Amino acid sequence: MHERELLRRIFDVSTGQGPEVVIGPGDDMALLRPAGWCLPGTEQGSGGVLLAVDQVIEGVHFLRSSATLSQIGHKAMARCLSDVAAMAGKPRASLVAASLPPSMSDDDAMGLFAAMRETAESFHAPIVGGDLAVHRSREHPLTCSITIMAEATAHGAVSRFGARSGDLVCVTGALGGSLDSGRHLDFVPRIGESIMLHAILGDRMHAMIDLSDGLGIDVSRMVEDRDDLQVRIDAGTLPCHEGVDWRAAVSEGEDYELLCMVAPGDVPESMLGCPLTVIGEVVARPDPECPTVVICSEGVEHDVSSLGWEHQA
Amino acid sequence: MHERELLRRIFDVSTGQGPEVVIGPGDDMALLRPAGWCLPGTEQGSGGVLLAVDQVIEGVHFLRSSATLSQIGHKAMARCLSDVAAMAGKPRASLVAASLPPSMSDDDAMGLFAAMRETAESFHAPIVGGDLAVHRSREHPLTCSITIMAEATAHGAVSRFGARSGDLVCVTGALGGSLDSGRHLDFVPRIGESIMLHAILGDRMHAMIDLSDGLGIDVSRMVEDRDDLQVRIDAGTLPCHEGVDWRAAVSEGEDYELLCMVAPGDVPESMLGCPLTVIGEVVARPDPECPTVVICSEGVEHDVSSLGWEHQA
Repeated sequence: MHERELLRRIFDVSTGQGPEVVIGPGDDMALLRPAGWCLPGTEQGSGGVLLAVDQVIEGVHFLRSSATLSQIGHKAMARCLSDVAAMAGKPRASLVAASLPPSMSDDDAMGLFAAMRETAESFHAPIVGGDLAVHRSREHPLTCSITIMAEATAHGAVSRFGARSGDLVCVTGALGGSLDSGRHLDFVPRIGESIMLHAILGDRMHAMIDLSDGLGIDVSRMVEDRDDLQVRIDAGTLPCHEGVDWRAAVSEGEDYELLCMVAPGDVPESMLGCPLTVIGEVVARPDPECPTVVICSEGVEHDVSSLGWEHQA
Repeated sequence: MHERELLRRIFDVSTGQGPEVVIGPGDDMALLRPAGWCLPGTEQGSGGVLLAVDQVIEGVHFLRSSATLSQIGHKAMARCLSDVAAMAGKPRASLVAASLPPSMSDDDAMGLFAAMRETAESFHAPIVGGDLAVHRSREHPLTCSITIMAEATAHGAVSRFGARSGDLVCVTGALGGSLDSGRHLDFVPRIGESIMLHAILGDRMHAMIDLSDGLGIDVSRMVEDRDDLQVRIDAGTLPCHEGVDWRAAVSEGEDYELLCMVAPGDVPESMLGCPLTVIGEVVARPDPECPTVVICSEGVEHDVSSLGWEHQA
């Protein structure tokens, strides 16, 4: 079974999560409004506490042979911060649980944590707690599990599931070539861009994610429970990195750019120096058998809803 | 190097954690008062958000051959909740990142999560987010990393480092024999007892921990930076489970009972049906060469400050 499908099944049977959980498992982060807590916007029913956990595992998410510990530490933390950006949240704190191979030197462990800490602190999410264990076997993989606590702004958090027919589909930066270029190891999470864009667009921003597995599969997940919607991307407008064609740009993944769905109207061309491009629109799906995400290139429609990286179990 | 020493070195070099981090790494949980967040007691400078992460790893913390997945799931979550009890906090939410061996069936994975969820929800800490990965090799160990978010009560959180000379040393329940009896697999974290005791004692409660590695080593960590203090335990008062002598009771660990240091005066004999026993006192240490924790048995003083389980790296 796919990891994602199993996780979904696990949380489908979950009950009794209570009225304090505004957004539960399945989105980029959970949104909570604990009774008795007053945060910016909570009195108006918009703010709240954002929480998420993510892990990187040697052999699954990275290879020691193709990245330094400093790069691994940065990427592990930046992936989590990218989830905060996807909710338009402000990072506030982080925690790290690491299990290390017994062969790892103390200096290497210090280097790994130093990289995580530097990235965390540069986004105002100091590592406030941690746990460390050493595996019994040298064959066991280096694992880092990172939790982020963030704050929804007074505008509220942006779920991945709010797309509406007629929405414009926008993406930050450029896509593709992340693995080949090494960008997946040193990308900067779009925290500032996200908060600014949300402040400008307000309630017009209906849905957002960060692109990690590939635009095709990531976007199809945004509308997977909406058999009345289809996302149509125009290949000619897709911002691709140099030397990358549209097919690679929607399927390679690891871009960590933001993709959002916005009510029709003006959209800023850039934020904080980062371009924002309208690449398509959300439409009524002609019929439920039609693909959820299509790319139109030179008059031909391509189903891209399964293009991307799917974790296999 | 010991895991604990490495973790300490990692966080010693940590800087810039900012004024919002009231208690940082090194205690049972971190305590935060994020600017702009108003929680019960924060305006009076007492309340706040508690955060901690803990992990259990097959081969390090448990063996699949000696515990069911349901027991492993319960224990993983209960250990974290015990940290909340140690701070006198109220659990509010939890998150789980698990990495599973590829040989694990979906039903087993569901069972593991069901046990974690049941324990979490019975203490009002629903699992609001999760991540799941499957290892590449069947030799790689089952790992669960659990994060808990809790709320300090308006009385504030109780650090492990607040002991003062003259304090009474008190312990809940009884100690020893946890591994042999299987209690380490089905213990109930002392959340209610802790909150009630803190409400009764208020500012008289100076320090608290949960006993996980063994009373000797756990208590020595409470005063490790205080070369002016010594903890003296009276073996005759130590509440031991049937068939357990004092040496086993202070060294075996896995009790998950609370130990607190309280200003002199009356102490309740029980809370919520759980006995509370005064087992000793904190005194001025005769000189820095003296042991940090001693047990007095039949007129003889025993240094127990290193009795317990120390994670080795």
